Amino acid sequence: MAGRTRRDEQVSATREALLIAAERLFAEHGVHAVANRQISEAAGQGNNAAVSYHFGTKIDLVRALARRHAEGIEAGRVRMLADIGDSADLRDWVACAVRPVTRHVEALGASSWYGRFIAQVTADPALRAVTSEEFAAASPSMQKLQDGLNRCLPDLPAEVHAERSVMTRHLITQMVAERERALADNAPTSRASWRETANGLIDAVVALWQAPVTRED
Amino acid sequence: MAGRTRRDEQVSATREALLIAAERLFAEHGVHAVANRQISEAAGQGNNAAVSYHFGTKIDLVRALARRHAEGIEAGRVRMLADIGDSADLRDWVACAVRPVTRHVEALGASSWYGRFIAQVTADPALRAVTSEEFAAASPSMQKLQDGLNRCLPDLPAEVHAERSVMTRHLITQMVAERERALADNAPTSRASWRETANGLIDAVVALWQAPVTRED
Repeated sequence: MAGRTRRDEQVSATREALLIAAERLFAEHGVHAVANRQISEAAGQGNNAAVSYHFGTKIDLVRALARRHAEGIEAGRVRMLADIGDSADLRDWVACAVRPVTRHVEALGASSWYGRFIAQVTADPALRAVTSEEFAAASPSMQKLQDGLNRCLPDLPAEVHAERSVMTRHLITQMVAERERALADNAPTSRASWRETANGLIDAVVALWQAPVTRED
Repeated sequence: MAGRTRRDEQVSATREALLIAAERLFAEHGVHAVANRQISEAAGQGNNAAVSYHFGTKIDLVRALARRHAEGIEAGRVRMLADIGDSADLRDWVACAVRPVTRHVEALGASSWYGRFIAQVTADPALRAVTSEEFAAASPSMQKLQDGLNRCLPDLPAEVHAERSVMTRHLITQMVAERERALADNAPTSRASWRETANGLIDAVVALWQAPVTRED
């Protein structure tokens, strides 16, 4: 039994090393530009087939990475939503959309490649469906958030609500990727911290939800 | 001389066929998932090396595609800005950011792959610099637009202005890609036309620029 456990730990450590190496290479060179062989090498695996042995295809590896992050972000969102009271206003709900993501990335520190990885995956015709599924499965809290937004904006037409949800998701994804990229490149950032970046995003997203709806006859 | 001209026309038609085939395949399968050989085949070129003969590397091909669109969008923006008067308000300036893009894509009709193509390129570590250069070179009008936004929002801190410019760019890119994808997939769209999509974007972007700036001490 003890032997079995050590073996499990070894497998687990190998998988972890492969995930970390993959995400870094994906962020720096592009998901499709990186071969599974390069990931195995970067993870210190002598066996070039380590990725396919542990994960299957590259799509399976992308799915495993997306799932990990989706679960981390969801856990943070559940904690924030548990603290939200009946008097919550639009800004409180928008904060529950933004801060779980910026806090997750901040906690990754120098190992933060998630922003650049997920921005690529979101735009990729083959990968976007895979990761949408992972995020939907890992995010039951999103319904509570949508309900909260709805209560704050009862007159917003359903299709505009849907449109602004999509805008919110893209703004968060892209601005997180922008800041992560700037930090990695030692380039100037518009904000001094992830917390300030979240403030800027929340300011913009709250205003976006409150915008009057132009209708043409 | 006449022979030379026919030859030029032939070359020009081949390049055009390659660009169209490339963009469609990039939009549907992903820029990196498509081999130059597949592009040559889809363009009806017997010679598998047609892409490298006419464009060089895939990066050169991506650059040529980005340049064409950037020039088309710029031409539309120059026309809009020529009509803008001294009494222009924030919404007029934001319209000059949004409508040249939605009109460009609308004019492409069923051959619209630009939105999905440019969303991928924007997220790609190797390609984003290439296309940023093309867009910067083709967009001298952007400075006039930024100056107009500045005049409407004189108290906005420079770094927040820069941040909201980036947000505006991402929102336009991503929402154009969303609608183009939905149309290609025969999926429901939140708006009935590109003009309505532009209205929704302008509503959101105007509000985003007007949002109060939260500062923490």
